[in-house]
Amino acid sequence: MVISSNSMTNTIARRSFLAGSVLAGVHRLFAAPQTPQTAGLADPKLIEDLVAGYRILAQQGVLDGFGHVSARHNRAAERFIMSRSLAPELVTATDLIEFDFDGNAVDAKGRSLYSERFIHAEIYRVRPDVRAVVHNHAASVVPFGVTTVPLRPMYHMAAFIGNGVPVFDIRKSFGMTDMLISDSKKGRALAEALGNKAAVLMRGHGVAVVGSTIPIAVGRSIYLDLNAKIQAQAIALGGNITYLDPQEAQKMMDGGENRAYERPWELWKAKAMAK
Amino acid sequence: MVISSNSMTNTIARRSFLAGSVLAGVHRLFAAPQTPQTAGLADPKLIEDLVAGYRILAQQGVLDGFGHVSARHNRAAERFIMSRSLAPELVTATDLIEFDFDGNAVDAKGRSLYSERFIHAEIYRVRPDVRAVVHNHAASVVPFGVTTVPLRPMYHMAAFIGNGVPVFDIRKSFGMTDMLISDSKKGRALAEALGNKAAVLMRGHGVAVVGSTIPIAVGRSIYLDLNAKIQAQAIALGGNITYLDPQEAQKMMDGGENRAYERPWELWKAKAMAK
Amino acid sequence: MVISSNSMTNTIARRSFLAGSVLAGVHRLFAAPQTPQTAGLADPKLIEDLVAGYRILAQQGVLDGFGHVSARHNRAAERFIMSRSLAPELVTATDLIEFDFDGNAVDAKGRSLYSERFIHAEIYRVRPDVRAVVHNHAASVVPFGVTTVPLRPMYHMAAFIGNGVPVFDIRKSFGMTDMLISDSKKGRALAEALGNKAAVLMRGHGVAVVGSTIPIAVGRSIYLDLNAKIQAQAIALGGNITYLDPQEAQKMMDGGENRAYERPWELWKAKAMAK
Amino acid sequence: MVISSNSMTNTIARRSFLAGSVLAGVHRLFAAPQTPQTAGLADPKLIEDLVAGYRILAQQGVLDGFGHVSARHNRAAERFIMSRSLAPELVTATDLIEFDFDGNAVDAKGRSLYSERFIHAEIYRVRPDVRAVVHNHAASVVPFGVTTVPLRPMYHMAAFIGNGVPVFDIRKSFGMTDMLISDSKKGRALAEALGNKAAVLMRGHGVAVVGSTIPIAVGRSIYLDLNAKIQAQAIALGGNITYLDPQEAQKMMDGGENRAYERPWELWKAKAMAK
Repeated sequence: MVISSNSMTNTIARRSFLAGSVLAGVHRLFAAPQTPQTAGLADPKLIEDLVAGYRILAQQGVLDGFGHVSARHNRAAERFIMSRSLAPELVTATDLIEFDFDGNAVDAKGRSLYSERFIHAEIYRVRPDVRAVVHNHAASVVPFGVTTVPLRPMYHMAAFIGNGVPVFDIRKSFGMTDMLISDSKKGRALAEALGNKAAVLMRGHGVAVVGSTIPIAVGRSIYLDLNAKIQAQAIALGGNITYLDPQEAQKMMDGGENRAYERPWELWKAKAMAK
Repeated sequence: MVISSNSMTNTIARRSFLAGSVLAGVHRLFAAPQTPQTAGLADPKLIEDLVAGYRILAQQGVLDGFGHVSARHNRAAERFIMSRSLAPELVTATDLIEFDFDGNAVDAKGRSLYSERFIHAEIYRVRPDVRAVVHNHAASVVPFGVTTVPLRPMYHMAAFIGNGVPVFDIRKSFGMTDMLISDSKKGRALAEALGNKAAVLMRGHGVAVVGSTIPIAVGRSIYLDLNAKIQAQAIALGGNITYLDPQEAQKMMDGGENRAYERPWELWKAKAMAK
Repeated sequence: MVISSNSMTNTIARRSFLAGSVLAGVHRLFAAPQTPQTAGLADPKLIEDLVAGYRILAQQGVLDGFGHVSARHNRAAERFIMSRSLAPELVTATDLIEFDFDGNAVDAKGRSLYSERFIHAEIYRVRPDVRAVVHNHAASVVPFGVTTVPLRPMYHMAAFIGNGVPVFDIRKSFGMTDMLISDSKKGRALAEALGNKAAVLMRGHGVAVVGSTIPIAVGRSIYLDLNAKIQAQAIALGGNITYLDPQEAQKMMDGGENRAYERPWELWKAKAMAK
Repeated sequence: MVISSNSMTNTIARRSFLAGSVLAGVHRLFAAPQTPQTAGLADPKLIEDLVAGYRILAQQGVLDGFGHVSARHNRAAERFIMSRSLAPELVTATDLIEFDFDGNAVDAKGRSLYSERFIHAEIYRVRPDVRAVVHNHAASVVPFGVTTVPLRPMYHMAAFIGNGVPVFDIRKSFGMTDMLISDSKKGRALAEALGNKAAVLMRGHGVAVVGSTIPIAVGRSIYLDLNAKIQAQAIALGGNITYLDPQEAQKMMDGGENRAYERPWELWKAKAMAK
């Protein structure tokens, strides 16, 4: 992506604000194919929310020492930002790295990368509506990726799964693997399984959750976890269950899904960043 | 409600105590129909307990970033008080707003309101014995709103559900909706389903719990959650269960339900407000 | 009990150490039948451990705002000590009150008492080996009091329930009640149901756990809770279960039950008292 | 083991760094058979990680007041290091003691020892690849030691149990016991049951987990606990389950099992040592 001189000026002007961010790296016009050009400095608010996303999901118990969150770059549709390989609870703005859709880092500075960044890359490639992606291994969610019992919406807070959550089984296309989405081809297959849904379960692995904003992808991850717990508990009661009707779910979505998680977002952020 | 000059004097005198409370708003004699007159300053103890109610239920894990607590105004039977739209853990006295039974705010000052305040309004309208209402989505309780297995009292601490907890299914009267109790008509239907009980489950949504005081409504919310967990665990054991007999529950209630939660209230409050 | 002048001297000498303790009350030689004489100051170590017992069980989640712990008085076999009616987490030495086996307080100073102190009184009366009693409503334990599935020992840490845990159903002798053990007669029936065991489940209510020391009664309460969780989880797996053999349990007890909980006691105490 | 004068020099040089460590005890050339010679000071990094291992597993809820962690001595294959008898959360470097494979302490200084140190000793004796051992009673894991339902790998994070986890039933060789692995003979039988696996369940007791490093043994303990929770939840859903294929597990292991837990290790350690 060619950055106009205007945006370059902005880049310099903002440098003092985001000092330390690796996104403020040198503009490399003559980068090798494997080293994409930067799309320029991301919106400080996006950076702040992305860091908060890692911390929030750690504090809420959705992420542990593994898993990751990413955001599409606000200046370039074909770039996304995520942390270097690091436990979510430790992520700060200086750990964020810009990537292209082939999983190449703009400026990794020798730091190790999440081997599964291709989950994010390939979803951004085919889902222009998606601006944030979460990958997690929440213990309540993993069972729904390995059982014949489908994950279904239990209440209005999980209306985003009104149309169901597909299950991606890596064996179908790749046979015996180490289960990781560690290249573009596997990422593409996962993105295909996701289709136009809000989340895709990964058999024997975890889940990928998407949203049009960071708070939405994070909020969905939290309520997917809660919905899984509620469904498991409802099933264990042994009676017949009335799931949320797809039309009910759709009406909830049409009315503004959980008000875009604005109400809890400030709370989650305050708590997670205070630690 | 016409406030006497005496009470107006009190209003002014107390202003320094409750500085910042929106309840101390200007007395508007000529308010439009949609802007009801204030019933005057609420009892500071009521305000304190209401704020504590929000914080306690957040700390006890009954409320998360959503859900709300209200109290009937001590000066006017036809007014109730609840927070502006805010995550429970963040609520302070300055966030409290006075409402009439049509869900109109006395003085919202442009702040956004909980869309489901009609749950509270319509219950207060038909239940003069109720002086506090809680609405929550506790993960242990939601399953009992969607299953054919009825929530039943497992132990003396939950004697208040001795006569059962009705389930309100919004579809019966309203067909396909976004599940929210976002107007008076839906609130009325929910209040009817509640009847003279202590709580009403909302299918695919959550629960509304009532009490004659804030500590009772809050305490019941906490023990409803615990009772749901205990019942689920008892069912999972696979044996035959002896539930609390309705007469046993009644005798517990007659003897003073959990001593009006006085013993834990000071503890809960101290812990929740210290955060 | 007549206190010798020697012990009275000790009482005075120790007063500065235990300043504020209600146990240091005036020696009343001419007390009415309902106001028993004090057995004198209890061992400061016993007081310290008793306060710790309340706090530990609150911190470990075995007690919430209800439930209580008591200890037999070290100077008088027919006296025991427990808190005034107070949430366990708030108990300090100044809240402790001495009782006789009829549930009469030596010097309540007008403070309200636990209505279920008769659980403790009657157990001490018939079990000379017991020097500490815990009454709790742990959510994992209550299900075993209402189901036909017996609580059984799952592992060596719960060897103290090797011979099973009897269930006391208050209806058998008292018909419809408020479920509370609020007088001597009900306490006696419960103590009879306990027999020579380490714990007795109370249907629709909770459990009473005993021990020859405070750390043992507290430790047993913690591991009874864990054993209940483990048994519930094992049953939910659906296979056949091998329970601890009564002989294995006995050998564990003979070898020194969990080394009298000495190892965890200092940890539990340090954590609970630091709060 | 004869320590060269070089390593003795190192011992002295490092003494100020590890002041207080019992590992810095006097070199006893003429020790009695029951008092083995020291292998010299262990690597400070090993000591640091071992202390962290105790604290991490306590903080993560895998260990409570019982259970222990050990590491093979870096200077002597036939020595291992573990704490004196102490609750894991309280362990510091000064509590560590060096042992030989017969469970004899090099210099216990009169402190009491874990009676089950033979679990560790006998595993080190027959498994040269093992450099760290954890013994715990995690509530989610114990059920799999007493049921006919085998513990199986649910997801890639638990690939280390790809070949299954054997169950050791102490009754088979020893009849009725107190369940403890309190001598070499019982330790040997347990080590035999472990075979070449990553963990061995102990019926009615707990589990022993091994690794080639402390972070691996600790990380496996954490994910064994999570895997047990996930499997229990998956089974409770009632559908058919697709377990991780042994080949998938093997490929995950070949690719570097969870990257040797490097990513979460720094996080776990920072959190556990900050307490």
